[in-house]
Amino acid sequence: MDKMLEVKGKSVEELKDICVTLRKKIIEIVSKNGGHLSSNVGAVELIVAMHYVFDAKKDPFIFDVSHQSYSHKLLTDRWDDFETLREFDGISGYTKPSESDYDYFIAGHSSTSISLALGAAKAIKLKNEQKYRVPIALIGDGSMTAGMVYEALNELGDIKLPVIIILNDNKMSIAKPIGAISKFLSHAIAGDFFQNMKKRTEQILQYLPDSATYMAKKFEESLKLITPGMLFEELGIDYIGPVDGHNVEDLIRAYELAKKLNKPVIIHAQTLKGKGYEIAEGYEENWHGVGPFDIDSGKALKSSDGKRSATSLYSDALSALATENENVVGVTAAMPTGTGISRLINEFPSRFWDVAIAEQHAVTSMCAMAKEGFKPFITIYSTFLQRAYDQVIHDACIMNLNVVFALDRAGIVGEDGETHQGAFDISYLSAIPNMTIFAPRDEKSMYRAVEYAYKHQGPCSFRYPRGSFGDCGDVEDLPFELGKAQLLKEGTSDILLIGYGNGVGRAVKVAKLLKKDGLDVAILDLRFIKPIDVDILEKLSKNYKDWFIFSDSSKIGGVGSTIACLKNDFAWDSVKITSFEYKDSFIKHGNTKLVEEYLEILPEQIVDKIKNCNRE
Amino acid sequence: MDKMLEVKGKSVEELKDICVTLRKKIIEIVSKNGGHLSSNVGAVELIVAMHYVFDAKKDPFIFDVSHQSYSHKLLTDRWDDFETLREFDGISGYTKPSESDYDYFIAGHSSTSISLALGAAKAIKLKNEQKYRVPIALIGDGSMTAGMVYEALNELGDIKLPVIIILNDNKMSIAKPIGAISKFLSHAIAGDFFQNMKKRTEQILQYLPDSATYMAKKFEESLKLITPGMLFEELGIDYIGPVDGHNVEDLIRAYELAKKLNKPVIIHAQTLKGKGYEIAEGYEENWHGVGPFDIDSGKALKSSDGKRSATSLYSDALSALATENENVVGVTAAMPTGTGISRLINEFPSRFWDVAIAEQHAVTSMCAMAKEGFKPFITIYSTFLQRAYDQVIHDACIMNLNVVFALDRAGIVGEDGETHQGAFDISYLSAIPNMTIFAPRDEKSMYRAVEYAYKHQGPCSFRYPRGSFGDCGDVEDLPFELGKAQLLKEGTSDILLIGYGNGVGRAVKVAKLLKKDGLDVAILDLRFIKPIDVDILEKLSKNYKDWFIFSDSSKIGGVGSTIACLKNDFAWDSVKITSFEYKDSFIKHGNTKLVEEYLEILPEQIVDKIKNCNRE
Repeated sequence: MDKMLEVKGKSVEELKDICVTLRKKIIEIVSKNGGHLSSNVGAVELIVAMHYVFDAKKDPFIFDVSHQSYSHKLLTDRWDDFETLREFDGISGYTKPSESDYDYFIAGHSSTSISLALGAAKAIKLKNEQKYRVPIALIGDGSMTAGMVYEALNELGDIKLPVIIILNDNKMSIAKPIGAISKFLSHAIAGDFFQNMKKRTEQILQYLPDSATYMAKKFEESLKLITPGMLFEELGIDYIGPVDGHNVEDLIRAYELAKKLNKPVIIHAQTLKGKGYEIAEGYEENWHGVGPFDIDSGKALKSSDGKRSATSLYSDALSALATENENVVGVTAAMPTGTGISRLINEFPSRFWDVAIAEQHAVTSMCAMAKEGFKPFITIYSTFLQRAYDQVIHDACIMNLNVVFALDRAGIVGEDGETHQGAFDISYLSAIPNMTIFAPRDEKSMYRAVEYAYKHQGPCSFRYPRGSFGDCGDVEDLPFELGKAQLLKEGTSDILLIGYGNGVGRAVKVAKLLKKDGLDVAILDLRFIKPIDVDILEKLSKNYKDWFIFSDSSKIGGVGSTIACLKNDFAWDSVKITSFEYKDSFIKHGNTKLVEEYLEILPEQIVDKIKNCNRE
Repeated sequence: MDKMLEVKGKSVEELKDICVTLRKKIIEIVSKNGGHLSSNVGAVELIVAMHYVFDAKKDPFIFDVSHQSYSHKLLTDRWDDFETLREFDGISGYTKPSESDYDYFIAGHSSTSISLALGAAKAIKLKNEQKYRVPIALIGDGSMTAGMVYEALNELGDIKLPVIIILNDNKMSIAKPIGAISKFLSHAIAGDFFQNMKKRTEQILQYLPDSATYMAKKFEESLKLITPGMLFEELGIDYIGPVDGHNVEDLIRAYELAKKLNKPVIIHAQTLKGKGYEIAEGYEENWHGVGPFDIDSGKALKSSDGKRSATSLYSDALSALATENENVVGVTAAMPTGTGISRLINEFPSRFWDVAIAEQHAVTSMCAMAKEGFKPFITIYSTFLQRAYDQVIHDACIMNLNVVFALDRAGIVGEDGETHQGAFDISYLSAIPNMTIFAPRDEKSMYRAVEYAYKHQGPCSFRYPRGSFGDCGDVEDLPFELGKAQLLKEGTSDILLIGYGNGVGRAVKVAKLLKKDGLDVAILDLRFIKPIDVDILEKLSKNYKDWFIFSDSSKIGGVGSTIACLKNDFAWDSVKITSFEYKDSFIKHGNTKLVEEYLEILPEQIVDKIKNCNRE
């Protein structure tokens, strides 16, 4: 099978067959395992042509976000293993050097590819390998909105090292091409029409009076510029395109031309998201990331567990809040559906925005709205707020503004793995002065969290998990009060379980299991990590000596470490703290339950540990 | 005096006089107090015209970086207080709403202004104040390289709310204008020449054969595009310019035109850095930020304390390393002099780069070089690495690459204040898996740190202060060894001082003072915060019970908190940890010693605290 998929030296017809085979395989496996569908079937020809013209053994193949790299995986050494796509210990949904030498770099966050390609180009030059190697970055138009891309283009246009950028324009975001004229000009570039036209134009302009010489020169320049490529040309990058991104032959011609040019080139390829799977064709967002589905009908296979996702609860709560309060505004950075903000954009189109992949701008622009008296809800995945860390410090917190950071996908995200885990937000936000940090534990408290955030003065953030909250049982539903924890139950043993956010549900489950073993433990919902409820902890330190921490966060700088500092500061010397937060390593992909088992944080595993701690 | 400075309703001649007065005052005060000279004298007319055309009481005046805002401060309510510029409790070198209502927002980090202006524009629209208010962003060309600017322009060009961007082009970074032609066209925009030329061109093109109609249209478009503004026009932002940024009359005309347009406009103003102070004119970097100087000669007044700065030691050490090892490469993000990388760029122009204000790109591009076998030294101020936090996690640490982060300006930076303090790096880096974190304590160990970083496998970072290291006395100079601390001296008392980085010098000084009082204390140089030397701490926990932490870093997530976690984990129950790291608040500007006194971390102050702790 792998031999059949060798693309080097094949005819165009054979390459087309390979594309059919790849597309079929991708649809088959994604329909079973879930994954990125439309971006992958949309990029089949782009990648087949890459492997035809370039050599993944030596040319750095850099896939932006790499959610379109399935064809590359199938074409290299992972055809057979591909059925384990996104499974625990299986093939990653993203490029991953530890999985294959053909994967040059990881990616999961967008817009890094041109920087990587430029770094590789510098290295290639220093190693004097320019005759044999050229970096190729494959980037979707959706990734072009992030500022990092322009930082890279700015240097690339100046330093002018050979780098080939394949812009996969599937109309996710950037401006539409001008249409007929640009197509006309792009065809012209490949053939000799452009050369002829240039000459003819010059001849015509010869006959014009006075300023003709300068005009001729400028007109010639302008011909190049009136394509959608002018933005790139302006930045000093040669432009080829648009090319039909589903025509392997045209792509090969464009790639070969780019290779010959021996300088920075951008190839603008137009593709259709979902190409080849009719039900998905053209539906940009719906078929981007999917769960298992029936191929014939396109219907989702997995029945829901009946529990509502934290995201949809948030979206509900925010919608109610925004209905009542006209100063509530909000933003998402290219995750309208993922964050539930799409509903708000529909309901309040003048007050909620999707600013595309632009986390820095999202945060800072909302800070100005807060300055003007609005109450912005900045809704971003925990992992993506890392991209606006300085803006959180510099624009929200130094200014002490009334902005809310609603952090979705806090904790383990499952199949997306290392690049997407929401592990660090508590650690990186805690050190920032003026920032208040709290978390809802369940469905009811999510509404309370949104209510509280609205009333809070100063910057605040709250986190909630991917999927649904754990079950916290029937505990009293209190409003949030700054810095106040909630004791869910007292216990007769020495043991106190301290839960934070989605960790509370796990603590409750562990308590139930311990109860079966005859251990009656206390449970505290911490609610706030900053400011933390020192008073209640002080009181509890008198009755409970074994404290166990439950939070979906990194141990370093997390909940347990915050409490360990208090233990030292207030001399709770007899208290022993054990944290079941995440160990100090990047967390791999797979079904969340399997990942948690691997991390030894399933309730059953924790119960054993607690019993062992407590065996005396 | 303030009345004289009222610009509204004044004649052009009177405005020119005001410019002279402002310039004189700025030069006078900066020559005494130090500060940003050339950017401020270069922006006098831009700001005078802003106050003439717009109203700082209602229009948001947004100064990018705000290191050019002195004229604005003098024109609003701070003429008399201006002599306290950058002094402790004096006028800030940046805009600061807590200092004056005329300051709309803080800034110190670059490239936030267009995002802020857009946020303000959204708020103004929602409040229905568009008839009365328009946000104005004043941004230097140097700030235009950061990606955040493009994220903001991308939304602005789409949403098309009225925002006026004044691009102060003092040739710090972006591409030069085309010269004669662009000037010609920009003049044309203001008058009627452009209209005439358009008509004439159309007439000419009428007589051309075949494709003339489409060509006429395109040529007309191209006329607009062949100015330096085409980049902005492409993004949907109207362009006016270039305008002479030292001609108040031209500026007023351009601003008034922009105001009338009622949509996003960029005014491209060309200025001379240092304008009006002949010695500084045109010298971009030398006169950007200066210490006190003699106005007549331009010579620096402050004599050095004879101690070499940590930056210059680093630069020395790196130069020696790069001479010996061809795989050493490095980057700075627009701080070549500040980081000492300018010397490396001179010595090794093919291996060291200044990539402009583009921290994200700087980090990620160097990660690709590491992948190719090079050893990049990414040299960035502690505060600016916040801008590449995600890249540190996603591209350096998940990939576990051999990259070095050399963090300059760690700790208190003095006169730059809140926005620039290097307080958070230990906190935000510690939680990242694979990251090794260490610090030199003095001159000799700086060389050792650079040596160690070269040999270290995986991502690592080390920090060092602004200015010179504290004096650590004559202690043994050992090479760094992963995770190993160095005990500088044993003591006869219960007290252990634990220093990290520049904190070691303070610990040594405190130990000397305590010795005078008859207390003989032990001193540990921690050297590594991650991995930390648990073994030596375990041993020391047996002999020393009062541990005091010295580090120029935030207490939350800092050195003390790391050790408090170990105390809990290893049950060092009799040990009491007290940290003299920074409290949880943003640290204001002023002379470093005064700031440290305010924070109560001067050695003399700490000695008192230790004696009080230890009074039993």
